[in-house]
Amino acid sequence: MPPPKPPTRRAPAGAAVLQEDVTEAIRAAVFEELAAVGYGRMSIEAVARRAGVGKTAVYRRWPSKLQMVMDVVSAVALHGITAPDTGTLRGDLRALLGVISFALRHPLASQIVPDLLAEAARNPDIAQTLQKALRETQQGVSAILIHNAVARGELPADTDAELVLDMIIGPLYWRLAVNRAPVTKRYLDRLATATTAALTAAG
Amino acid sequence: MPPPKPPTRRAPAGAAVLQEDVTEAIRAAVFEELAAVGYGRMSIEAVARRAGVGKTAVYRRWPSKLQMVMDVVSAVALHGITAPDTGTLRGDLRALLGVISFALRHPLASQIVPDLLAEAARNPDIAQTLQKALRETQQGVSAILIHNAVARGELPADTDAELVLDMIIGPLYWRLAVNRAPVTKRYLDRLATATTAALTAAG
Repeated sequence: MPPPKPPTRRAPAGAAVLQEDVTEAIRAAVFEELAAVGYGRMSIEAVARRAGVGKTAVYRRWPSKLQMVMDVVSAVALHGITAPDTGTLRGDLRALLGVISFALRHPLASQIVPDLLAEAARNPDIAQTLQKALRETQQGVSAILIHNAVARGELPADTDAELVLDMIIGPLYWRLAVNRAPVTKRYLDRLATATTAALTAAG
Repeated sequence: MPPPKPPTRRAPAGAAVLQEDVTEAIRAAVFEELAAVGYGRMSIEAVARRAGVGKTAVYRRWPSKLQMVMDVVSAVALHGITAPDTGTLRGDLRALLGVISFALRHPLASQIVPDLLAEAARNPDIAQTLQKALRETQQGVSAILIHNAVARGELPADTDAELVLDMIIGPLYWRLAVNRAPVTKRYLDRLATATTAALTAAG
């Protein structure tokens, strides 16, 4: 599966001289290098070579390897997961679990994020940026899902948003990104039923 | 937190000449090196140096870096997580979630496993061994927990053991090893209540 196209981001200062197609080529090269050799062994040189550009083209866009990787990863992590609105909590959860299980098959989740997590344990800058990116994506989606369920009387107003997130994302992440076990439609149906009961009980 | 002492393992062939204290020193050095530089950049030389032994002492025990790391990691992953027997499903789940949240604070979960998972995407040998180790630990514990709950009439006999595992381990793994967010006693209490409802509903 090819990585989803990252969203267009606001141009940095001096952007008039930056060609968007070069930026896209570098972004794609970052993903390919991360998947091939991992963050620790990745070099700006190799990214530039893979993108077919000079090193200065990379440095004109990002001042360091860390900032380049974090920008590219955040753009994808923040992209594409939106809150469903089906009219029921179970319907919303089933839709969201489907979207998440698709997103977790992206190399970003199975290969690049574990790599960055391992680096994060040794580099607080990575840890902080990665957690911010993860948290921002998650909180937006769960806030809408909870808000709608509370409005319908399906969840109490003081529902613990963090517990909800952990219960929605955790089982699929564990299954797909850690165990690398398959996820079927039937599995997602049962998980949606189980998660609906869990959130209702957790309150 | 220091890594838990790995369990004593059966001695390999020719063990008469292997000193157990040297083996233990090498095991500890493997953990420290994995945490410090990661699997990709770890060398047998550095492990031997850290353990204060010669390279041959390492090769006498394990034929390769991969087999050394997998043996050491499997020994810890398989160790210490046993099925509780409190008399109720919620009691068993609360106890197990406590044990798992403790285990997930080990550097093995937050640092070494993500690293190996990233390598696993590039090396099928790592993927297979790691998944076998993870799965064996998990399946033993969940089989007992489900068996007891079925015997008490709290879960149906055809309960999906894999779904149960994903729902027990997933949220805590996501929270502790990926997001690196704290887990309180109150959080574990709510998670136990939610998980009990989830498993009961999933059937």
